[in-house]
Amino acid sequence: MDKLLDSINKANDIKKIPVKDFPRLAKEIRGFLLENISKTGGHLASNLGVVELTMALHYTMDLEKDKIVWDVGHQAYIHKILTGRKEGFKNLRQLDGLSGFPKPSESKYDSFATGHSSTSISAALGMAIARDLKGSNERIVAVIGDGSMTGGLAYEALNNAGRSNTNILVVLNDNQMSISNNVGAVSRHLNDLRTAQAYLNAKAGVHKVLDKIPVIGMTLDKTIEKIKDGIKFFLVSGIMFEELGFNYVGPVNGHNFDELIDVLNNIKKINGPVLLHVRTKKGKGYRFAEQLPWDYHGVGSFNIKNGCPTSKNKKTSFSKVFGDTMVSLGRENKKLVAISAAMTSGTGLDDFQLTFPKRFFDVGIAEQHAVTFAAGIAASGFIPVFAVYSTFLQRAYDEIITDVAMQNLHVIFAIDRAGIVGADGETHQGIFDISYLSGIPNLTIMAPRSGKELKNMLSKAVAMDGPVAIRYPRSDAEEEWNINEEVEYGKAEIVEDGCEIAVLSCGTMFRYAKGAVDKLKEEGYSPALVNIRFIKPLDIEAVNYICEKCEYIFTVEDNIVAGGFGSCIESVVCRKNGIEFKAFGFPDKFIEQGTREQLFKRYGLDSEGLYNSIKSILEKGKEQNG
Amino acid sequence: MDKLLDSINKANDIKKIPVKDFPRLAKEIRGFLLENISKTGGHLASNLGVVELTMALHYTMDLEKDKIVWDVGHQAYIHKILTGRKEGFKNLRQLDGLSGFPKPSESKYDSFATGHSSTSISAALGMAIARDLKGSNERIVAVIGDGSMTGGLAYEALNNAGRSNTNILVVLNDNQMSISNNVGAVSRHLNDLRTAQAYLNAKAGVHKVLDKIPVIGMTLDKTIEKIKDGIKFFLVSGIMFEELGFNYVGPVNGHNFDELIDVLNNIKKINGPVLLHVRTKKGKGYRFAEQLPWDYHGVGSFNIKNGCPTSKNKKTSFSKVFGDTMVSLGRENKKLVAISAAMTSGTGLDDFQLTFPKRFFDVGIAEQHAVTFAAGIAASGFIPVFAVYSTFLQRAYDEIITDVAMQNLHVIFAIDRAGIVGADGETHQGIFDISYLSGIPNLTIMAPRSGKELKNMLSKAVAMDGPVAIRYPRSDAEEEWNINEEVEYGKAEIVEDGCEIAVLSCGTMFRYAKGAVDKLKEEGYSPALVNIRFIKPLDIEAVNYICEKCEYIFTVEDNIVAGGFGSCIESVVCRKNGIEFKAFGFPDKFIEQGTREQLFKRYGLDSEGLYNSIKSILEKGKEQNG
Repeated sequence: MDKLLDSINKANDIKKIPVKDFPRLAKEIRGFLLENISKTGGHLASNLGVVELTMALHYTMDLEKDKIVWDVGHQAYIHKILTGRKEGFKNLRQLDGLSGFPKPSESKYDSFATGHSSTSISAALGMAIARDLKGSNERIVAVIGDGSMTGGLAYEALNNAGRSNTNILVVLNDNQMSISNNVGAVSRHLNDLRTAQAYLNAKAGVHKVLDKIPVIGMTLDKTIEKIKDGIKFFLVSGIMFEELGFNYVGPVNGHNFDELIDVLNNIKKINGPVLLHVRTKKGKGYRFAEQLPWDYHGVGSFNIKNGCPTSKNKKTSFSKVFGDTMVSLGRENKKLVAISAAMTSGTGLDDFQLTFPKRFFDVGIAEQHAVTFAAGIAASGFIPVFAVYSTFLQRAYDEIITDVAMQNLHVIFAIDRAGIVGADGETHQGIFDISYLSGIPNLTIMAPRSGKELKNMLSKAVAMDGPVAIRYPRSDAEEEWNINEEVEYGKAEIVEDGCEIAVLSCGTMFRYAKGAVDKLKEEGYSPALVNIRFIKPLDIEAVNYICEKCEYIFTVEDNIVAGGFGSCIESVVCRKNGIEFKAFGFPDKFIEQGTREQLFKRYGLDSEGLYNSIKSILEKGKEQNG
Repeated sequence: MDKLLDSINKANDIKKIPVKDFPRLAKEIRGFLLENISKTGGHLASNLGVVELTMALHYTMDLEKDKIVWDVGHQAYIHKILTGRKEGFKNLRQLDGLSGFPKPSESKYDSFATGHSSTSISAALGMAIARDLKGSNERIVAVIGDGSMTGGLAYEALNNAGRSNTNILVVLNDNQMSISNNVGAVSRHLNDLRTAQAYLNAKAGVHKVLDKIPVIGMTLDKTIEKIKDGIKFFLVSGIMFEELGFNYVGPVNGHNFDELIDVLNNIKKINGPVLLHVRTKKGKGYRFAEQLPWDYHGVGSFNIKNGCPTSKNKKTSFSKVFGDTMVSLGRENKKLVAISAAMTSGTGLDDFQLTFPKRFFDVGIAEQHAVTFAAGIAASGFIPVFAVYSTFLQRAYDEIITDVAMQNLHVIFAIDRAGIVGADGETHQGIFDISYLSGIPNLTIMAPRSGKELKNMLSKAVAMDGPVAIRYPRSDAEEEWNINEEVEYGKAEIVEDGCEIAVLSCGTMFRYAKGAVDKLKEEGYSPALVNIRFIKPLDIEAVNYICEKCEYIFTVEDNIVAGGFGSCIESVVCRKNGIEFKAFGFPDKFIEQGTREQLFKRYGLDSEGLYNSIKSILEKGKEQNG
């Protein structure tokens, strides 16, 4: 039998397939996803969960004019399949390949680029308002998971959409699962809703009953109409959403085509903002993913038959070093508290959570709250460590300044995934943190070049006072050389003394800096090699020492050059006459997906690239002098 | 009769005054506030509204151990009066005087520094968690206005506090008024609550009635208990807060001591998170402020008798120029849309709102949503202008990067209150924006030195593509000299050509740069004077031209030096040998309150200070060369 999927080659092709064949197509799509993701890696469980939902949306909408905004966007693979991008899955999330997230630059059917959580309702509301101003009638749909609903941005958007009276559909994809387990009252609220199906049926009957309630005195007389409203709200169980001004519909079974298509068609008749509550099972259709959806959220390549990874990285990651160190520091210091924003496992805090459950807090996808909450804890004499990905900490920039640094509170930011993150691409690269943090008064910023150094820096940070940030990448933390273990406050490590040339490196870029230095040494140069360790405060003494001995100074970092560590050094170096300076880092553009190594190579930040650039500058200098 | 206020000289002194005398004390406090604020200026209406609430909190709490976190904090004047800071009001909000916001560095009774909205619940939850870990029993109270409840951070915090089971009291100060009128569904929800007092009384009765409801069949049988819960929720009307896990109490009259003290004492018996809904009248007790609370939110000096300002600034502000230009651009271009985050009047958008109500959106205190909403609008071909204060835009840093710049969307950021804001102090200074914006790819950043230039830049921004930011200060936009009106993309304005010395200035710092240049000219130097206009992209050609002619290059900006415009110039200048460079701007600390002039003088950024610094550098150079 021919595959139905073969006939899906562009948007709206799904409309040519009879609904009765949808279960077969869904099965084929799941097979396609497993086949491809098992090779390339990618977001598996979340996509398996929305096969039927995506198909039903595409079937009931006209993608040539209607728009879907996918919150976070890692669940948009089926949307990509249904809009002519099947072929791209061979190179999914690889350098120059298909993105793992929606991207208008990749396809006109991606109405909005996403990657960070909780943005979809705001963007969709903006599109709906623009549509109303234009006077056109396309449908605008935001698809948002229950995890994303814990982010304050989603609430700000619901609050504004709720009073807008505009036609906008928010599909709440309720799978009880964000990247970690959901957290907080909203999650509990959604759990309650799951038992509410029965009440929906009873709704009509209850209204009849209410008409028979005997009215006792004046007070009740006035309230009886309101009570009915109250019961209505309760019965449909979307109380909170109704309170926020939405027409609440649901919950419906997100794996049942009849239910989904019926309700999506019916909703077209409702005016104003609608929230459709859909229940889905993350990992649906692949038993390993159904059992452990969290393990199959973002995967590398794996064996479909047994669900096991096909390549195992046995090297210790920075996240693991961080997590282990937190446990041992937690034993020594009863005041140490750890905070995660839905990234407990990703940041390596699982063991801390298990060992010190009372001193561990997962606040959900709520980075702003995490930071101000940490500030409150620190203001009361405890030492909170907020472990967070660099790119997500951007959400809390204001809180870092106003709530933490301005009060000089002892909050530690453990910034994981700093620098290049790889396959997640533009939206997730942690290449801005040095730029946005280094201007903040009172803040100490460190970057370890190895796991050992991270361990030492974290101990140091706990023993210090005031706000401290430590940034480290998504990479292994193996040692490739002996290091001086002592980390002294504000002091750089002069790894190799030298003259004429100096290379100052930040964090794990040390390995590439060292690579370039080694090549230069082979050619008879004697370059100095410095591990800067403290981005703030800078070791001015060390920089001055280098300036006295060298005429060529180079800095290397995996941050954008603008406002990066190099530009901090530049301010010191710049006024020394006769010194040639260059800062290596990422240029003034968003950095695409690719492995760390691929991107370092592409941007001239690997040993070879650094060596070549430095060499050509040296030769130019020699020519001018000679 | 002696004043009761005379006996209030330190925390807890209020407890010595009999409750029956509280109305008299409240009256005295209002008199004290009017007396002082009418001279110094400050936040009037919000403080007049919480006199009774603050007194009742202090009376029922022990401020020696209990903690109050004041959201935003501009309503904490009475708290300051009751904790021994009466004397400070003479110099309220002035250079080196009492802060207009809570500051732990000012008083140990200020448990947490605030200034930006919606932080109080997060901070209070952190303190409550720390208390629980310590095993102590102090009470932790957050006082938050209904306006602050529109900020996503507050929701993130409620969501976490609601499931915490910790003892924390959130006092919702519901005065129907944030800085502008409140916006959105939450506001409507709170309006509904105002009619709910009657239902509170009926609560007991209704439960009796429900017991008599005949049960029809199985379906209802199962739901009846739930219905009762639903009705309970509805009756107490705090449905949303109950849904979020809070015990909801209220609404109570925030100007009635008996009600307030009773309920605050009763709440002590409730375990877990409690939300107390208090209704207050902003401006209470001063008729002009009661009538026009918005006009009396933040005031300058005024005549108590007639409520009129005692000094009027007749000069046109940048905000006014912006607002007027928006109206005329809005007439020309039907695609222009304006967005405010509860700062319609402050940013000068009132006229646009009145003229084009369909193209104006006040999203409430929700900067994140404002930016992503704007991105959605821009993605659909309209041109949104988000007018926002520099310090508040920090909240949306991630959205600017991820939702706007990464998609290269044509969103215009009109950044008001950039640079020094004056009396609001540290929390409100707009001195970080150049640093956090200049690293963002695709973004164009401009700064006008006059109203005329702002007008031209705004027209330019509307006609361009991609994201654009224009930053301008809280100051008058008068012309002091003739200017070249043409603003050409990416081009600096070389106002005076010269040699040996060049001063490059950013935005309105031009007047001080020019002052310094004029003095140097008097002494026979011929300095070049450049108005940089574009912080990004930099006019490299102009900078290179200057570098060729000058050995001393100076930059002047009202941003922090780290990552500021000077550091962008530095990267270009630095590698030219034999050039002396210095960037003037704010040092690596938070900048206190004071007028613009006072602070420019203090930090050497006024004409005199710049001249002196430049002169001493020149003389040092001459010595070395001579």
